[in-house]
Amino acid sequence: MKADKKRLEFLKKDAVQGFTRTIGLKPVSLKPGEFITRIKLEKHLCQQDGFVHAGVIAAMADHTAGYACYSLIPESHRILSVEFKISYLKPASGKYLECKAWVTKPGKLILFTEADVFSVEGKVKNLVARAMHTMASVPRAKIAK
Amino acid sequence: MKADKKRLEFLKKDAVQGFTRTIGLKPVSLKPGEFITRIKLEKHLCQQDGFVHAGVIAAMADHTAGYACYSLIPESHRILSVEFKISYLKPASGKYLECKAWVTKPGKLILFTEADVFSVEGKVKNLVARAMHTMASVPRAKIAK
Amino acid sequence: MKADKKRLEFLKKDAVQGFTRTIGLKPVSLKPGEFITRIKLEKHLCQQDGFVHAGVIAAMADHTAGYACYSLIPESHRILSVEFKISYLKPASGKYLECKAWVTKPGKLILFTEADVFSVEGKVKNLVARAMHTMASVPRAKIAK
Amino acid sequence: MKADKKRLEFLKKDAVQGFTRTIGLKPVSLKPGEFITRIKLEKHLCQQDGFVHAGVIAAMADHTAGYACYSLIPESHRILSVEFKISYLKPASGKYLECKAWVTKPGKLILFTEADVFSVEGKVKNLVARAMHTMASVPRAKIAK
Repeated sequence: MKADKKRLEFLKKDAVQGFTRTIGLKPVSLKPGEFITRIKLEKHLCQQDGFVHAGVIAAMADHTAGYACYSLIPESHRILSVEFKISYLKPASGKYLECKAWVTKPGKLILFTEADVFSVEGKVKNLVARAMHTMASVPRAKIAK
Repeated sequence: MKADKKRLEFLKKDAVQGFTRTIGLKPVSLKPGEFITRIKLEKHLCQQDGFVHAGVIAAMADHTAGYACYSLIPESHRILSVEFKISYLKPASGKYLECKAWVTKPGKLILFTEADVFSVEGKVKNLVARAMHTMASVPRAKIAK
Repeated sequence: MKADKKRLEFLKKDAVQGFTRTIGLKPVSLKPGEFITRIKLEKHLCQQDGFVHAGVIAAMADHTAGYACYSLIPESHRILSVEFKISYLKPASGKYLECKAWVTKPGKLILFTEADVFSVEGKVKNLVARAMHTMASVPRAKIAK
Repeated sequence: MKADKKRLEFLKKDAVQGFTRTIGLKPVSLKPGEFITRIKLEKHLCQQDGFVHAGVIAAMADHTAGYACYSLIPESHRILSVEFKISYLKPASGKYLECKAWVTKPGKLILFTEADVFSVEGKVKNLVARAMHTMASVPRAKIAK
């Protein structure tokens, strides 16, 4: 059940709210099963040594992967993160982060995703982290608070 | 090389800056190899369904585990996250999050840690996530930007 | 749906077949949500440096966790491993391995488990690995080959 | 420090001993930073439902990734698995398994690797699992038993 153009536009906007607004996440492009996002790097996203905090990178990878999933599920469903693993290949700094996430294996209940996070400074783009996630597609009614 | 009282007090303050200030992390207690922190939950830390964003929980677990490591390494060294895995046992909401992280296996170069994250509302405390991390202890000089 | 005594006895036997027979897995005790197993260490389970192969430890942790799950699901269902992460705290050798696995969060579809693997030599027992798994409980009919 | 042709030939043979002989691992090709292996599927490698045991797949991915690392480190060093995460995209069966592993980020102390495992039956090749590992390169002297 791939999202149509209108749904994709909605999802791109929906992806920025609450915590993702806090960290300045911006959608770049969303197509069924693949989402690209960016974050401009600022001091309030860094850790004690001036690098981007590992938590920002993990949050970006998780969220970008989650909305890549939204593009493949019915509107009646919601995505919840079941678990993920992230490896930090090198400390990240630069002007902004870019994340590309994609669904490696869609399923009715469980979707597997992956995400690459790059630090970008001018024309230099470095892969700084790679993540693998397990996402659950849950009927909205079941997760009401 | 366990931190003395003065060093522990320094680390508790040092743990809050940049991104951890952004998410409102507060140290509760730090002893050699174990750190407890809290975050008051507010809307800017949540995701689209009103639950705490998975990225906040991951960031909290990673950071709390990282500073649990700092209490066991020389002042000349810095902690970098090599990788972690986090499992989300249930969606988190409530008044605040509490995280307890501990070093399961210290080493000169590599430290293994774990972290539990609880959502707290009044007297009810629910385990919402568990994480395992690999941390690297690196001489400060080697990671200068 | 906790298994009764008869079901637990069946599961203890059922746990040893195919690959787990190949690696010499022996059930020690099974109660609802917790399974303990052992493997006698022999040369054909080791790697190039004489330590137990990481794959044996991973297989043991996965399988012990899987059957801990079986003790909590209906007989009509089967357990499949969705994913796991394992950390190797130290190289393993000794007379045998012991694994204790338990369900940290049971669910109708998804069960979270953890496992500790110890190397044992006489009275000395060392924790050599820790794992976290995501398991799926699937109706038997759905996974027929 | 990439391995020369003679060293690569040695490593391909060295990769099969102890536990990897037990599971019938065969080297297919090894070049610096990338290793491909196969395992013929037989009943003693399966689990209770007739699928390949998750532990066989994990062991294959771990080992293939480990020897991909060996092709990039000095002969004086040994590779130890620090940790890994593996996702099982679908149950595996077929005539044999093929694993391709590669080093995503080499380092003097720590190497990051990934591995894909495919089930193969005739001309049909299915991706059944993906893994990410952290490997340590350790001077041989330091890990003597």
